[in-house]
Amino acid sequence: MDEFDFINKLKPKQLFQKHVKVGIGDDAAVYEPSVNMNQVVCVDTMVEGVHFLKSLSTPTEIGYKALAVNLSDLAAMGAIPRYYLVSISIPSSWREEELLGIFKGMEELAEAYQMDLLGGDTVSTHDKLVITVTVIGEAESHVQTLRKQARDGDIVFVTGTIGDSAAGLAVLLNQLTLENEMFEKYLIHRHKRPTPQIRAGRLISTLHRASLNDISDGLASELHEIAEASQVGIMINEVDLPISEELLFVKKTTDINNWVLFGGEDFELVGTTSQESWDELKRACNLEGIKMTKIGVVSTTYSDVLLKRKNDHIMKLEKSGYNHFKK
Amino acid sequence: MDEFDFINKLKPKQLFQKHVKVGIGDDAAVYEPSVNMNQVVCVDTMVEGVHFLKSLSTPTEIGYKALAVNLSDLAAMGAIPRYYLVSISIPSSWREEELLGIFKGMEELAEAYQMDLLGGDTVSTHDKLVITVTVIGEAESHVQTLRKQARDGDIVFVTGTIGDSAAGLAVLLNQLTLENEMFEKYLIHRHKRPTPQIRAGRLISTLHRASLNDISDGLASELHEIAEASQVGIMINEVDLPISEELLFVKKTTDINNWVLFGGEDFELVGTTSQESWDELKRACNLEGIKMTKIGVVSTTYSDVLLKRKNDHIMKLEKSGYNHFKK
Repeated sequence: MDEFDFINKLKPKQLFQKHVKVGIGDDAAVYEPSVNMNQVVCVDTMVEGVHFLKSLSTPTEIGYKALAVNLSDLAAMGAIPRYYLVSISIPSSWREEELLGIFKGMEELAEAYQMDLLGGDTVSTHDKLVITVTVIGEAESHVQTLRKQARDGDIVFVTGTIGDSAAGLAVLLNQLTLENEMFEKYLIHRHKRPTPQIRAGRLISTLHRASLNDISDGLASELHEIAEASQVGIMINEVDLPISEELLFVKKTTDINNWVLFGGEDFELVGTTSQESWDELKRACNLEGIKMTKIGVVSTTYSDVLLKRKNDHIMKLEKSGYNHFKK
Repeated sequence: MDEFDFINKLKPKQLFQKHVKVGIGDDAAVYEPSVNMNQVVCVDTMVEGVHFLKSLSTPTEIGYKALAVNLSDLAAMGAIPRYYLVSISIPSSWREEELLGIFKGMEELAEAYQMDLLGGDTVSTHDKLVITVTVIGEAESHVQTLRKQARDGDIVFVTGTIGDSAAGLAVLLNQLTLENEMFEKYLIHRHKRPTPQIRAGRLISTLHRASLNDISDGLASELHEIAEASQVGIMINEVDLPISEELLFVKKTTDINNWVLFGGEDFELVGTTSQESWDELKRACNLEGIKMTKIGVVSTTYSDVLLKRKNDHIMKLEKSGYNHFKK
């Protein structure tokens, strides 16, 4: 495979953003920022054998997810996605066709958000494929949905349903079998093709004040981040946690609590805002058909993250989300 | 090693750029672009065993170079460096102290250019360390030093001296031994700690028109890129190529042509501009003590990249720079 030839195949046929001045093909890309917009930027890496297995995901699914996890970070900042760059370390075990599949998976999502691929790097490696995606978004200069902004009395909310992704991974790994194939497919889909909550993030960004995180490492871990950054306590109610019909089906025979609380990779948004703003947000989400659920409250009378069980018993939730270095 | 703890150690104690609104520690970083400035962005990856060897470079040297190669791309676009993000895939064979050394190497360079570390990702991998650096710079909206901008009659110029880095690598690999230890050290230094030509790039960016590339893949390869993008031919003169005193010493006993023409990794700038602008550039560089050498001319009467040898014989220069996939 020839690097120059390969890069030529990746060059987008069209650009969505008129602000791109220099795209792929020179030493760096150049774009004009939108007037009065801050630039929002983050980067995420996925490693073969750690974050995905070639035996369990197609190249397109791998590419899709590599971009999706980054868009989820932009969503948690209330930003509009604009551009992405992709750096990929390629072992000889991957064929060009498969690599193009990875980029196809990203393009699918990029097209949905009118994002342009601005550049990247392709290098060879001796072992496992590593893919690093950098995304750039924009947000109005007043937009700040930071973790440190939770306040006493805030409502804790979450988008969509949680726990599906971890259950889907369990299905993929043959640790969980359902008697309903459609439900299995749904959970796997949630694991492989998470939907970044860009629209919800934008709605939340219009509130007077909100704290916000995306659920990559598990609900408990994300709540801990908000609680620590804001120096508050959080109590969530088990009965209020939004669980999909499919996961409720699993619950009949299997304990789903670990997936719901610690599973992660749902890439939903979790945050807090005042009661008044919550009412406003709830109305806006109803209008747009976005599922948004109140799951708890913020308090400064305690400093832990607590779970009120169905029997009204209150337990401390440990952080214990997925920590890459804990082995 | 704990990921959260490690990231805390990387958080900069101070920010250089007042435009940073949200630094490391949330889902993404947020900054305000400078007024009337375009954003210039690129990404580069270095893989252990491919781009560097732990046995030949210290962590600090590896980190320095990982950022330097990216700054070199910004230099070739005439941009001012502002921000960087670092994604690193870490095998268990690297100790935390070594990893901090990598970041120290980057900080050294970042401090020199007042760049802020805005974020990144740290993940584990089973095999070799992979480091991906994304840099963001800014340039005035009229600045465009693109490869496609060479014109018939242009002067071809290069900054600094070329061939040193490849000779330095040969010393490191015990393929070359000099009787002068100081000279060996110099060549190795040029390989391990290339100086991105940011200032030269900024001077070139003020010219009416210029084409520009940084020398990562070798002089011949970079000239081919300019020639192809601009649909012109280029002829350079062997006698005019700027060679360091140290490499001239090597030349007494060893053929240095391959290093000078195809070696790459010098991270000098090579470009073309009109005779008039060349005179202007030469004056500006003299004032600032930047070595800038005329090495050839652009012509549309041929479409190749040609080398005029010392004996006036003219030979075609093949592209044959380092191509990661050619094995």
